[in-house]
Order: sequence, then C-alpha cells, then structure tokens
Amino acid sequence: MKTDMTNDDLDVCFNLVQDVARKAGEMIREAFKQEKQVSTKSSLADLVTESDKKVEQLIISTVKDKFPTHSFIGEESVGDSCVLTDNATWIIDPIDGTTNFVHRFPYIAVSIALLVQKKTVIGLIYNPILDQMYTARPGQGAYCNGEKLQVTQTQDLGHALVCAEFGSSRDSKVLDSKFRSMRKIIEQAHGIRSLGTATMAMCMVASGKADAYFEMGPHIWDFAAGDLLVREAGGTVVDTTGGPMDLMSRRVLCAGTQELANQIAASLEQLDLQRDDCA
Amino acid sequence: MKTDMTNDDLDVCFNLVQDVARKAGEMIREAFKQEKQVSTKSSLADLVTESDKKVEQLIISTVKDKFPTHSFIGEESVGDSCVLTDNATWIIDPIDGTTNFVHRFPYIAVSIALLVQKKTVIGLIYNPILDQMYTARPGQGAYCNGEKLQVTQTQDLGHALVCAEFGSSRDSKVLDSKFRSMRKIIEQAHGIRSLGTATMAMCMVASGKADAYFEMGPHIWDFAAGDLLVREAGGTVVDTTGGPMDLMSRRVLCAGTQELANQIAASLEQLDLQRDDCA
Repeated sequence: MKTDMTNDDLDVCFNLVQDVARKAGEMIREAFKQEKQVSTKSSLADLVTESDKKVEQLIISTVKDKFPTHSFIGEESVGDSCVLTDNATWIIDPIDGTTNFVHRFPYIAVSIALLVQKKTVIGLIYNPILDQMYTARPGQGAYCNGEKLQVTQTQDLGHALVCAEFGSSRDSKVLDSKFRSMRKIIEQAHGIRSLGTATMAMCMVASGKADAYFEMGPHIWDFAAGDLLVREAGGTVVDTTGGPMDLMSRRVLCAGTQELANQIAASLEQLDLQRDDCA
Repeated sequence: MKTDMTNDDLDVCFNLVQDVARKAGEMIREAFKQEKQVSTKSSLADLVTESDKKVEQLIISTVKDKFPTHSFIGEESVGDSCVLTDNATWIIDPIDGTTNFVHRFPYIAVSIALLVQKKTVIGLIYNPILDQMYTARPGQGAYCNGEKLQVTQTQDLGHALVCAEFGSSRDSKVLDSKFRSMRKIIEQAHGIRSLGTATMAMCMVASGKADAYFEMGPHIWDFAAGDLLVREAGGTVVDTTGGPMDLMSRRVLCAGTQELANQIAASLEQLDLQRDDCA
C-alpha cells in the first residue's frame, strides 16, 4: 500500500502522466484516421473499439513500470465493481467519447486522475485531435496547454450556457426522465450544448466556455480528472442533487458558481443508478 | 440587374469573399476576447452583439465597392422580409452562433453565399476561432482549409450521429414539438450532438464528422452557404419533410445519403414557421 506520496513522487507522476497521455494521443490520432471494426457494448450508442483497450494497457503498464504498488481503476479493465482504497490509485478513461471517436467527431479525450487516500492529487484530460492538454493539481490551478483556466461567474441559470447529454441508455424510463430534466433547463437557460463527452464538457466549464454541465450515468473514470480541473479553475462540483460530490455515484453537476449549481440541481429529476462501487 | 456572371467575375467574387471573411474573422476574434454588452433580440437565447452589425457592414460595403449592382440579404439588415430576385445576391450571416459568441463557446462562423438567378454559385463558412475556412463552388467540390471534404455513406439512422438543436424559441408548443422529434431521433440514432450553430453543424456533415443535421427555425442566411457545401461534399440537402430544399422555408435537413435523410424526415414532426419571404 502506498497511502502517502512525497512532493517529489507527485512531480514524477505529473510528468509521467503527461508523457503517457501524449503517447496515448498518438495511438488515438492514428486510429482516428482509419476505418475501424466496432463491437457493441451495452447499447448501440456505447461503442467500444480496440483502441480503447490498447490505450488503457499502455497507460497502466507505463505507470506500473515506475510504481508497481499503485492501484488502477480503468474503464476497460474494471469488471463489475470499483474498489477505491487509500492506496495511490490511477483512474483511467482511455478514450472518453467512444461514439464520437467512431464517427470522427473531434471531441474525444484521454482522462487520467491520480487519487491518494481517496483525494485527487492529479487530474489530466488530453484531447489528441484538438491537441488540448488540460491539467490540474490541488492548490496549483488548472491549465490548458500552459494557459491558466478560469470558470465564468454566471450565477443565474437565465444567463447560462449549459452542457448536457442524452447519454447512451435507450431505456424508455431513463429517456423520459432525462427529457424532463432537459426541458426544465432549456426553458430557463440560454442554451444547451451536447458534445458527447463528459470530460470535454468539464473542460468547457473549467475554461469558461460553458457555465455548467450535468449528467447522470457517467462513471468515475469519466469525471475524476474533470472534477479537480473544474475546482482548480475556481468552479463548483457537486452531486446532481446539489449535495457533496461522490465519485462513485455516477452523477455530476459542475458550474462556475455555487448559485448556478444550486439552480440547476433544483431543476433536475434524479435517476436511480447502480453505483460504481456496488458489485 | 446582374443576372448572369462570367467565370472571371465568379473567380473575382470567390477571392473577394475569402478575403473579406478573413477580415471579418479578425474583427470577430478581437471581440471574442473582450467583455461585451449584449442586447436581447427575440428571446434570451437569441443574443445579438454590436460585432454582428459591424461585421455585416464590412462585408456588404466591401462587396458593394466592387459590385455596386449586386443585392444583399443579411441577418442584421434584412428587415421583416427577404426578397430574392434573379439578381446576383449575397446572403450573409455575419456571426452564426451569437449565443456561443457571447459565451465564448468556440463554434461560431461567418456564412456567405452568392446566388445568381436564385442558384448558389459560391458558399463560404469561416470559423475564425478554430481558423477553419470551408468553401464550395458548384461542380468543384467542398473544401476546408484546402482539404477536400466527403460526407459519410451512413444509410441507416441506427448507425448515425445526428446534429440537432433546441433552438432559440422558448414557446411552449415549439419546444413540445422539438422534444418529440428529438425523442424519436435519439431512440434510433447513435447520438445527438448540439453545437449551437446551423452553419458549423452543416460543416460537420460536409466533413463526415456527423452523418446528418436537421433544424426547423433557422433562416436563409444560416444555411444558404452550408447547403452548397454539403451538396458539393456529396451529401443531400432537403426540406425537413423530405421534399426539395426551399431556402426560404426555414427548414433544413442534410445528410450524407438520401436514405438517411428519408429516415430522419419520417421521424420529424413539422413546425409551422413564418417563411423568410413572407412580410
């Protein structure tokens, strides 16, 4: 178990994660250009590709080489349940936005977070198609390609641009609920934008290009890095109920301000989802 | 009246429109960085900025200098009704995606089309934030930054990524209808993406990054250039009923294939909209 890390260790990890994300990015860019054979996962909208698995293997083996005692929670290798201990744990989404990837829609990203004692100490999101590298460390701010990020100060939903998604479930009750929430939001907001990826939506909020983002359904690997990124850019990340963020809950609501997050939470209908830590 | 143009004239226009779009792009990029005072137009979601008017003035005066007999239909100067004659007519949207512009969401574009005898002979869409210049001329293909574009060959909605928008109207009946159409699409498609701009959605379809786009509500200046772009990239542009495209109808449906366009048209509920040529 590795439940504490020195600043030197963390600096090594921070360099390592950027290097491996760029290598993963090269693999993704290469595959992005080719025709691909895809297999369906839980639904038509949730496509998984060989690249997904290869990229996750690359990231895990690179980190393991350097830190053999660390733990991993990866989208492709996690199995039925996540166990998050106090051990240094890397949370990996090799390609967030697989449907986008298959369609060549340019919003895809590698997402990597390092948690120690269940606290996120590094967050990285890299979009290799747009060559945007987003990074954050606690107390050190959030950056994209070296430029410091700052959320918007929008407090009123009536002045907000909100990122939201229909998601991958085609279950009729889930869609009913999502449509009711979307309707409540669009009636009040400037607009809704859908990019098809949780990670890039959180980057939009951290960058001040959107005021908020919410979704019910994504997994810990979809938002662990984005959570730190938004907070380090000055924003708020909470549960979709408005309560404290729970990385295992599969619900995320982030906004430039607490006031806006509260208004959005009050407009959402909650979905009953199987937690990521429930086998 | 200037109802015919030589190839030399058209070459001059094609160079002119790219030059003026780049100048407009500089103005837009500059304004994009500044805080702006916005005035509300038809609704909260339909914001108009000073830059919109300035950019349209720049484009019109630049063209008028060279071609004083030409006509213009511009978003900011059109008044209550569009009159499209056989005269050489420039259809201009100075900034498509004004809500995005206000929020710094990077999908905005200048859209310019030249029609002669009511046929589009030049289509240009320029996104100055992403520095993407899309151009098309009849029989000469569609290009982005010099790279030839090709739509996807997706025929089945079950394999399609579709761009669609909630739009700017907050009228309850309009939203009811749009939500019913969205629901029918999402139940069948891989996913829906919303970028908040008709022009850039059509660029996504022309580029093969999305399989289709539909919307009821946009105006002739939102899709005149995109219409030619998608067709020159090998795609289909029709009315949302599936019938022939009518630039004044405020309804657009474009797709990589006719088969996909037909499937989408069959899933849409039509909206009764005031035509652009009806005072």
